[in-house]
Amino acid sequence: MSKGVHTGFDEQQYPYINKGLAGIIAFSTTKSSIDGQKGELIYSGYNIDTLAEHATFEEVCFLLWNDRLPNAQELEDLKNSLIEHRTLPGPVLEYIKSTDKGAEPMAVLRTAVSMLADSDETKGKFDESLFMDQAIAITAKIPTIIAAFDRSRKGKNIVEPLNEGSTAFNFLYMLNGEKPGEQAEKTMNLCLVLHAEHGMNASTFTCRTICATESDIYSGVTGAIGALKGPLHGGANTAVMNTLLDMEKEHGTDADPVELTRQRLESKEKIMGFGHRVYKVFDPRAYHLQKMSKALSEETGHERLYEWSMAILNTMKEEKDIDPNVDFFSATVYYSIGIEPDLFTCIFTMSRVSGWTGHYMEQAANNRLIRPRALYVGEKNLDWVPVEDR
Amino acid sequence: MSKGVHTGFDEQQYPYINKGLAGIIAFSTTKSSIDGQKGELIYSGYNIDTLAEHATFEEVCFLLWNDRLPNAQELEDLKNSLIEHRTLPGPVLEYIKSTDKGAEPMAVLRTAVSMLADSDETKGKFDESLFMDQAIAITAKIPTIIAAFDRSRKGKNIVEPLNEGSTAFNFLYMLNGEKPGEQAEKTMNLCLVLHAEHGMNASTFTCRTICATESDIYSGVTGAIGALKGPLHGGANTAVMNTLLDMEKEHGTDADPVELTRQRLESKEKIMGFGHRVYKVFDPRAYHLQKMSKALSEETGHERLYEWSMAILNTMKEEKDIDPNVDFFSATVYYSIGIEPDLFTCIFTMSRVSGWTGHYMEQAANNRLIRPRALYVGEKNLDWVPVEDR
Repeated sequence: MSKGVHTGFDEQQYPYINKGLAGIIAFSTTKSSIDGQKGELIYSGYNIDTLAEHATFEEVCFLLWNDRLPNAQELEDLKNSLIEHRTLPGPVLEYIKSTDKGAEPMAVLRTAVSMLADSDETKGKFDESLFMDQAIAITAKIPTIIAAFDRSRKGKNIVEPLNEGSTAFNFLYMLNGEKPGEQAEKTMNLCLVLHAEHGMNASTFTCRTICATESDIYSGVTGAIGALKGPLHGGANTAVMNTLLDMEKEHGTDADPVELTRQRLESKEKIMGFGHRVYKVFDPRAYHLQKMSKALSEETGHERLYEWSMAILNTMKEEKDIDPNVDFFSATVYYSIGIEPDLFTCIFTMSRVSGWTGHYMEQAANNRLIRPRALYVGEKNLDWVPVEDR
Repeated sequence: MSKGVHTGFDEQQYPYINKGLAGIIAFSTTKSSIDGQKGELIYSGYNIDTLAEHATFEEVCFLLWNDRLPNAQELEDLKNSLIEHRTLPGPVLEYIKSTDKGAEPMAVLRTAVSMLADSDETKGKFDESLFMDQAIAITAKIPTIIAAFDRSRKGKNIVEPLNEGSTAFNFLYMLNGEKPGEQAEKTMNLCLVLHAEHGMNASTFTCRTICATESDIYSGVTGAIGALKGPLHGGANTAVMNTLLDMEKEHGTDADPVELTRQRLESKEKIMGFGHRVYKVFDPRAYHLQKMSKALSEETGHERLYEWSMAILNTMKEEKDIDPNVDFFSATVYYSIGIEPDLFTCIFTMSRVSGWTGHYMEQAANNRLIRPRALYVGEKNLDWVPVEDR
């Protein structure tokens, strides 16, 4: 009796179904440009290579929110605003403390960010003059949420945010309970810079779709976190790390990553961290992360992880001619600076919120409700049959 | 120095920018069909007129989740499952009690639904065999969240859900603390039936976009709530009611709705509850709600609200040739059965969650990551200028 889902319907025969909206241009934007053929990524005018070399995360936030770099005073003001907004409202902290050890980090982050709206005096009012402050408040609080959650679940005391220091410095301090060294701060900052913005990915698109109903920025960011959580999006970096750790667990330090990758490919298992809808060449972010991963692995004695990564990368290139994406090396970088694998997607959020909120402001400034269509392929106007006769 | 947003860029000149994705077909679906020219709405085979006459909300849930109506045993099983899942996890109830009087109902609902994931043993695992139970659990708990929140903010005791009765009956019981009459239950049920599903609206589309990353169903529904919250989507019904109440507040019972509507149109104010991206004729849901609004207004002595509504409707038709949408009459119907205007969008959620979760399952069964493109209109490869020189 069940018609099931799409039984007997062949989508291939309907070329006007834009499945996944692949190639459909839905917006104009000044936030980022991705040239998948050249492997080029631009944030609001600046090449990612330039930003990776010079920029702080705070400069990138300003850039994505204003489409230009801040002058000295503006940067100072933004840093101070971010510092001022680091503390969490009481109920959010209470919620984090009440979650149990096994709670999913991204689910807790989603709930906590949603809850931030309750303590916003404007309730996230949809008003252009308020968006910047709302974006600052959310961006400032996400690192505090993540660190508080991780310490709480480990039974450690929650560390109050510092009244000074960069986002990267303060986050590592709150997470580890001690101030990070220069190299760790630099690494964390670079990760935040590299993950901040990336075109019309699923989470950014979710944020814009929510904004387009004139819903509040908390709704936009909460929805985006939900999208980023998926393993086909931000969740991939955790999966990459788990692949490496499972390899070690199952096969010991003598594991042969080339052989294991070939076996997985043969049995049609998905190898996480490879391929991208947009990049057809090496992802420029992966290039910076790879350099960092190499340097860190030598420093921290995780050389094997780096070597295995390279062996998997080379095997994937040989067997499938496919390049790694941003998730592939961010996994080992995060791991090398002592972050738990199941927090990786939260760290991604900490950075990407700058892009989401930039897009939210851009959408609001030039809005139209986002409402595509679907082709109905079911029956129509069936007669009602009373329940006792079905 | 600021480039601002889209300065000097004219989107009109780029016809391949599908702003708002209007007219773009992104999916095939068996969930609903809307014929905007005929004013026809179908849920999985059945015309909305048929469903409005015969169906319970529970039958509609089964229909949207299975693409067919349940037989007697299946309906009984679903009703029992929904009843079993009505109770809220302790932390969700604690959160609701802790929110202050002025909290935004849709924001609290968004947070509470997100928090439900913490108590799901599977953590909302992305597994086809679990989706139905997850959908039942969320659908069953949303009415309890709404009623608990409304009573808590009014300083009333929170009423435990019943172990029997329909979704409509139990909700009105939990909200008012006493069992509703037959007419009130019937009205509430019809509202739930009429709002359950409606094509690729912004919240349903958000839910599918989140699902497409293989993120969990709690993320999908939480994101959808964020989208529905916006006044250009579900938030419109609250705005309709506020228009009517403001009219009375400012001009007393002698207010002239025709004149006031004309004045608003002249000053280019938006009149909420009119027009729809898809319907070019009278929205069939508005037809059923109008009938109900008329009957209820007579019963409850709110005739004036109904008369004013009709005067606004006729003025809009005369002046702009534009018809009311589903929000226009749902506002007065909800108000007539004693629901606070600021809860209207929550009531919409209580119903639409059935459509969202139906679409979530459909997306998961035939998935592709949803990732449109944006046209970059900013500058490229600017030189880095040190902060002290900006």
